[in-house]
Parts: sequence; C-alpha cells; structure tokens
Amino acid sequence: MKTYVAVDLGGTNIRAAIVDEEGKILEIKKDKTEASLGKEHVMAKMEELIASLGGLNEALGIGLGIPGPTDTINGKIILSNNLPDLIGYPIADRIRKRFNKPTFMANDVKVAGIAEALLGEGRGSNNLYYLTISTGVAGAMILDGKVLSGFHGHGGEIGNMTIDPNRESIGGLNKGAAESWVSGPSIVREANKACNKKFKHAGEVFEAAKSDERAKAVVERFKDDLAVLLAGVCFVCDPEKIMIQGGVMKSAGEFLSDVEERMRKLLFPGMRETTLAYASVEEAGLVGAAMLAKSELA
Amino acid sequence: MKTYVAVDLGGTNIRAAIVDEEGKILEIKKDKTEASLGKEHVMAKMEELIASLGGLNEALGIGLGIPGPTDTINGKIILSNNLPDLIGYPIADRIRKRFNKPTFMANDVKVAGIAEALLGEGRGSNNLYYLTISTGVAGAMILDGKVLSGFHGHGGEIGNMTIDPNRESIGGLNKGAAESWVSGPSIVREANKACNKKFKHAGEVFEAAKSDERAKAVVERFKDDLAVLLAGVCFVCDPEKIMIQGGVMKSAGEFLSDVEERMRKLLFPGMRETTLAYASVEEAGLVGAAMLAKSELA
Repeated sequence: MKTYVAVDLGGTNIRAAIVDEEGKILEIKKDKTEASLGKEHVMAKMEELIASLGGLNEALGIGLGIPGPTDTINGKIILSNNLPDLIGYPIADRIRKRFNKPTFMANDVKVAGIAEALLGEGRGSNNLYYLTISTGVAGAMILDGKVLSGFHGHGGEIGNMTIDPNRESIGGLNKGAAESWVSGPSIVREANKACNKKFKHAGEVFEAAKSDERAKAVVERFKDDLAVLLAGVCFVCDPEKIMIQGGVMKSAGEFLSDVEERMRKLLFPGMRETTLAYASVEEAGLVGAAMLAKSELA
Repeated sequence: MKTYVAVDLGGTNIRAAIVDEEGKILEIKKDKTEASLGKEHVMAKMEELIASLGGLNEALGIGLGIPGPTDTINGKIILSNNLPDLIGYPIADRIRKRFNKPTFMANDVKVAGIAEALLGEGRGSNNLYYLTISTGVAGAMILDGKVLSGFHGHGGEIGNMTIDPNRESIGGLNKGAAESWVSGPSIVREANKACNKKFKHAGEVFEAAKSDERAKAVVERFKDDLAVLLAGVCFVCDPEKIMIQGGVMKSAGEFLSDVEERMRKLLFPGMRETTLAYASVEEAGLVGAAMLAKSELA
C-alpha cells in the first residue's frame, strides 16, 4: 500500500498525517499554527509535526494544502490574510530539502478538488470542476486527475469573475464579482437589506425564503447568479461534473436542483449532461494534500 | 522528417494537404465541398483528395479540421449550418478505416489554436488560450500542446458566455452573450443603430470612431465587453497568453492594447503578466489539422 504525507496548514491549526492511496488517514498529528510568531516558528512546527509521523520513512511524497492563492510551481503563498509572514517564502522547497522527498503544494480548494476527483464524486471522470461556496468563492479545474494551476497559479479564482458588470464593487473585487453575490456573506448582506433583519448565516435566509417574499427574491437572484457563473465555467472547459462544497451547501436542498436547471438552460443543448453534485469526501483538505502528491507522482 | 495529412473541411471547399512537423505545407489538393449533394458525396470527395496525395503513405496520421461544435472523442459533427447532412456521421472513423491511419478531428478554432500553440505565438508555453473574433466568437484552451475538448466536445464555446445578463438575447444566444456584443456583426449592428448609418464591417466602425463620438461609444463598450470576457477566461484557466485571430483583428491597432489594459485591471495583481497577442500562423486551419494529429500522437 502506497502512502503519502499530508499537511493542512491553516490559520489556526497545522495538521500532518499519513494517508494511504485510497484516502484513509492512518495517523494524524496536530498543533496550533501561531502565525503571529513568524514564519520560522510556523515552518519549525510544520517540520516537527511531519518528523513525528511514524509512517514518514515509507511515504512516497509530501503534499501541502495551503489557504488562498498559491504558486504551485514554486511552492509559495501568493496572498494570505491569515499567514502574511509566509507570503513568498519557499515553503515547499524547504520541506522537500528537509525530508528529501518529492513535495507538492497547492491551495486548499485545489487540494480538496483533487480529493473529490480521485476518491469522491469525480472518480472515473477526467474532466471535473470543483467549487467552494462559503465565505469565499473559488474553484479548481481537474483534468485527468491533475489540478490546473494556471500560469500564475491563479487558475480557479472565479470568485472575481464578473457575473453582472452593472452591480457595485464590494471589498475590492470587480464590479458584480461572483463572490460578492453568491457567497454566504453576500446572501446574508442582501437579505438583511431586503428584509431589514439581522440574519446570522445563509441557512437562515433560505429558511426565511419559504414564507417571506423579500427573502425569496434574494434567493432567486442568488440562483440566477450562480447559474450564470457555472455556465461560464462550462463554456470554457465543459466539465462532466461540477462538485460543490462549502457552508452554503448545507442548504443545497433549497437551491441546487433549480440552479442545475437554470445553468442547463444557459448551455447549448449538446452540453446539458453536466451535473451538479455535492462534494462527498470527508477531511478533503487533509486527504487531498496526500492526493496532490499521489497525482503529481503518478 | 515526420509528416501528417491535414484536411480542412469547409462549407465551400475541402482541402487536403501533406504537412511536415514544422508546419510546412508540402503538397495541397482542393475541391468544392458541394454539401447539398449529401454526405456520401462529401465523404467520397474527401477520400479522393486524401488518396491523391503523393505523400500519403509516409504520413503518420490524419487530422481533420471541421467548422462548428465537434465531438472530438467520437469524431462527429455536433452542429453545422453549412454541413447539416454530416451532423452525427462518424467522419473520423470512416477516414481512419479507409486509410488505416490514426485519425483525429476537432473544430476549426481548436485546430487553429493548436497551430498557434505549436508553431506560432504560443511556442514554448504550456497554458494558452486561443480566441477567434469574427462573425462568431469561440475559443480553445491549449494545455501542454493539446487542446481541451471538454466532456461534450463544447469546451471553448465562450461565444455564449454571459458578459451582461441585463442585455437582450440575440439570435437564440443567452442574454448578453459575448458573441452578441464583441463579434464583427455585433459591432456593426450597434454602430448602425447609434450613428444611423450603414457600416459594412467592423473596420469602418473603428475608423469612424476616430471622429464620431457615437461610434466611439460603441467601440469603448466593445473594449469593456471583450475585457470582461477575457478576464473571465483568465479566472478559470489563468493562461500565459491569449492569442486572438479573426476578421475584427484587422483593426487590432485600434483596440488591442486598451483591451489588454482593461483586462489586467479586472485580474488579481498576481495574474497580470498574461498578454494578448496576434495569432501569427498562416493557413492555421489547414496546418493546425496536421498539428492536431501531431499533438495527439506525441
């Protein structure tokens, strides 16, 4: 049985694990990130965690899952709110040299997408799109079991795609950017405005939409906007499946089939077999880091 | 020197050629398509043309370039105004069996994109986008020298991508579809409306925009719309270069640098090295059919 080291570097915790080729977590270690203590501190913690794994010697490679835009080619963080001190630092290089194993790095969305492609809903398909709809909106194209990073490592940053150029710019994103209209916080923002309420999360808005016409209008626009975004992805890469994950998917029963129907109406008749699916792999961020190493070593 | 058979099947003419691996056309034959006489007639013509090529025996494979959406996996035409009788017919299979050579088929835009990737502006890059802006608008993603067809063979049909959902639907496309606002005919349509004139082609509109504010407004909107479309492509696949071809590019001097600047403003700072380039390969439709065979046999 082939095994890989997986590292999930988050703003709060670092986790390191030994994962087998079928995605089973055999061993896991965890520690606080303590990013405020600087990059040397974080890197040393990561190294300690990896070194403490009993299965380290047998592992064929190391995969690192990192939040936010990542330069997968050079193994560096491009942008990060939680780990600003690590921006530009050659993380993958350092880990590669320290442990003398092939080391690969990609952002958390891409890594989860690979997990889904190799182990979950996407198994057996060679053209997939993976999307997270949560606080942020980002995606990853997975072709033949490998994630497309793009020239600058920004492939999949579709949260900034324009879905309606007539709307305002929010939080520095483009006017009418997808993330400003289909993310969890955007649903809450629009519903609070429309209903003059203080919804706590998108789930409450979907619930309210069952009896409140104003909340319903917000949800209907969300469905239209998401359909436009997904159709745009389909026109570029025509995936077999779009697998969706993220907090907003807790309410998928309230919107996913409508979005699929509206997306298909926007597609050419010959493209309408593309399905929307729930992402299904548990611990995809950690397991996916191992699958990144597996896919790159395949 | 390796050689390939290239076939360019058009609504008016069929051309068959022997092309070497560097894209040099060594031999070329041409005949009328006469599509109205039915698929058997067209297929027999194609076979005759190929059979008449002196370099046929030595050729390693056959590439077919076909207009419109094409099922590259099964080698069939999906949709066609000019060749309706051939829709769904197993063109590639028949040619493969008749000549006993590996045979590949893709639409004319994808084929031209491969030519550009292997021989032209895209040489040396492994992540490219190719776009035609002519009567229609369509694209092709070229990764590691191979074109992305997509699950249904519709990858690259970005003419139907929504760039502004508030605009009308034209010719059966989606509301605010790219092709309805950045194609040659769309520029002429909008300028005729704005200026109450009868422009013949987009080049006249770009010329008029130098002195007529109303024509200028049409051109400025075209630039904004094209920037939104291209930025959308970048957010999905983050290409190194976007190579553009088509009739509207005759006026590229009047818009391309502005579009590049506006596109970059829409991108995240770390993505702004992506360049717009003129497609440069001559006879890309024919030469690209050979490059399709070369790339698939590589």
